[in-house]
Amino acid sequence: MTSTVHPVEAAALRARTASVDLALATRATKDAALHAMAEALEAATASILEANAADVDSARAGGTPDALLDRLRLDEARVRGMADGLRDVAGLADPVGEVVRGSTLANGLELRQVRVPFGVVGIIYEARPNVTADAAGICLKSGNAVLLRGSSSALRSNTEIVRVLREAAAQAGLPADVVQLVPGEGHEPAKVLMRARGLVDVLIPRGGAGLIRSVVEESTVPVIETGVGNCHVYVDRDADLDQALAIVLNAKTHRPSVCNAAESLLVHADVAEAFLPRVVDALRGAGVTVHGDERFAALDGVVAATEEDFDTEYLSLDISAAVVPDLDAAVAHIRQHSSGHTEAIVTRSLEAARRFTAAVDSAAVIVNASTRFTDGGEFGFGAEIGISTQKLHARGPMGLPEMTSTKYVVTGDGHLR
Amino acid sequence: MTSTVHPVEAAALRARTASVDLALATRATKDAALHAMAEALEAATASILEANAADVDSARAGGTPDALLDRLRLDEARVRGMADGLRDVAGLADPVGEVVRGSTLANGLELRQVRVPFGVVGIIYEARPNVTADAAGICLKSGNAVLLRGSSSALRSNTEIVRVLREAAAQAGLPADVVQLVPGEGHEPAKVLMRARGLVDVLIPRGGAGLIRSVVEESTVPVIETGVGNCHVYVDRDADLDQALAIVLNAKTHRPSVCNAAESLLVHADVAEAFLPRVVDALRGAGVTVHGDERFAALDGVVAATEEDFDTEYLSLDISAAVVPDLDAAVAHIRQHSSGHTEAIVTRSLEAARRFTAAVDSAAVIVNASTRFTDGGEFGFGAEIGISTQKLHARGPMGLPEMTSTKYVVTGDGHLR
Repeated sequence: MTSTVHPVEAAALRARTASVDLALATRATKDAALHAMAEALEAATASILEANAADVDSARAGGTPDALLDRLRLDEARVRGMADGLRDVAGLADPVGEVVRGSTLANGLELRQVRVPFGVVGIIYEARPNVTADAAGICLKSGNAVLLRGSSSALRSNTEIVRVLREAAAQAGLPADVVQLVPGEGHEPAKVLMRARGLVDVLIPRGGAGLIRSVVEESTVPVIETGVGNCHVYVDRDADLDQALAIVLNAKTHRPSVCNAAESLLVHADVAEAFLPRVVDALRGAGVTVHGDERFAALDGVVAATEEDFDTEYLSLDISAAVVPDLDAAVAHIRQHSSGHTEAIVTRSLEAARRFTAAVDSAAVIVNASTRFTDGGEFGFGAEIGISTQKLHARGPMGLPEMTSTKYVVTGDGHLR
Repeated sequence: MTSTVHPVEAAALRARTASVDLALATRATKDAALHAMAEALEAATASILEANAADVDSARAGGTPDALLDRLRLDEARVRGMADGLRDVAGLADPVGEVVRGSTLANGLELRQVRVPFGVVGIIYEARPNVTADAAGICLKSGNAVLLRGSSSALRSNTEIVRVLREAAAQAGLPADVVQLVPGEGHEPAKVLMRARGLVDVLIPRGGAGLIRSVVEESTVPVIETGVGNCHVYVDRDADLDQALAIVLNAKTHRPSVCNAAESLLVHADVAEAFLPRVVDALRGAGVTVHGDERFAALDGVVAATEEDFDTEYLSLDISAAVVPDLDAAVAHIRQHSSGHTEAIVTRSLEAARRFTAAVDSAAVIVNASTRFTDGGEFGFGAEIGISTQKLHARGPMGLPEMTSTKYVVTGDGHLR
């Protein structure tokens, strides 16, 4: 022990201590804590909304745009939503203790690979204060103590939510320090968190590309990258064009601001003549600006695309669009421009579907359905901490099992080598 | 494309291109390549031994100690061992394409989570040139192109081995660039490799604690930490003391230089009087120096331990030793000092075994057997790229499945949200 423990390291040490008890807690205890936390949030609606109103007022006075204010704002329904989210997590199976693999070796040793919590998880996230309760619930159920670092704009909301959650956890018999806000202001606390290797087991950034890049660059703690989605829909030569039209529209317009929305459209040259006018019409009719290559740009109202367009996650009613000579060219385009989140093909050809799903290297590859299905809820995971776009540990929507590690338990009877 | 691509980045780009073909290669093609590589190594024994002799001569002239010279040195049997290792890997199941999880969702969408290669793997390792062939074989079978960075002392050996492996891979119909040495001399090439995020999917350092620490500190590429083992044996109050004696001796002396050898002995106070004289006698008889706490140091020939001893991975005929008041104190001691590799308990008590295996947070927790069993070969994995001591992605011995990621393949029939 040195004499100068940084307050963030001190919080991480408290989390580490709390995580030992939490790792040994039964499902019954954890679920009781989650229900207690849900009740407590609802009971504290007034104080949470009061703290949130102060955050929103400051943000508005600081010139924050309306779209961001909306993400920051809580109301009764959103507080109830947080509480219901915690109850949902209580209803999910406990991943801790699951035997992933097991066998009796030739020499009689019994080998079991068992799911265990990571220990301490750090979450760095942006404006939405409901992430505070969601992340705390998922971490608690998976047996992990959590260090939450939200944005300064939501500090009063997050402080009140965490106060309520900690009190409820303690009443249910768990250490309050299983849930903590990272203390301190400015950028320094997050920087200390990112260098707390050995104290923090994994860091999950949730937010925009800039936030995620800076965490990846600066962390010595292992990071799970989430969320950036430059998702493609490829309309194959053998596509049902009515189906393709509906999928493109749904993928682009159902909820344009989220990571599994489509950002780019590729069309096989053989169906370009038939499909381009229809899809451009429909997209324009839905308020979408099409940023097209030469073929697309020959149509009314299409904006000529720059190379940068094809690398852009718009998160708005914009889409880049290009004609490709064949499926392999579509795959090559996707390899060059995709962020590795989700790509869809529309085709009736089994061969095309097989080739596309084998060759495209993304977290999710979808045949004849909207990119919007890449989602923990849609996949039936019940809860989601984020969508991993990296290949290590977890890829795609992350549910409770993805929030655990494993250990080997080996039992013998005096076995020697 | 900028005009200045570093040679290491150029190699990584070539690996990336080759990895696309390799990811789509069938098991038959990969196994044929592994067999061709094995034959080619044996056929090239003379040129490999010649290159190796030059490495050994230089190292000896440079004053390298005998133990390290032995790790560097190849002979006919070791070349044959490399070839047999490749044949063994050919005999193992292909992890690529395995369906890890699958279901049909309520809306009829078919969901499959499928194992896929990482893409490009970087391995940074120390003296032993046989790692070159082992790592290349495991990466090839798991569908990953590999960038190998061995030590400069083995450069001529590694260059010749990689030349032979590449030629054989190409003859079997795979791109030669699925196996490459990282080009260039000095520390800079490894530094470029560690910053090649987006080109290299995962880095695995294999070697001493210093090497691993520097890779963890400097990499932006995700890293899997391997190998440092400060392993404990805890002799419980309810231990069979004959069994405990045999396990301690085996764990310490069977092969002291490896990561799963025991480095520290903890004994429950209730059996200290009966066990300490016996175990110290036996260890001293086997040539082991015991670095003991006060209780141990009261015995003849025991050296008084410093606090540093309990944090030391000796990798030699030394062991630290302490008496603990109870099981929970043993767990606390392990939490404080262990590197998270392997800890063993010797006990006849089911309750003690349950508590120890639940509370100890290490990659492997062993009951009534030697720590030496934490090993891919012993676990029946058939091949091992290393033993992960981190919690993300893989923990414990890493076989072929641990060298893969997954992706979700989702098939619908025009599904929209």
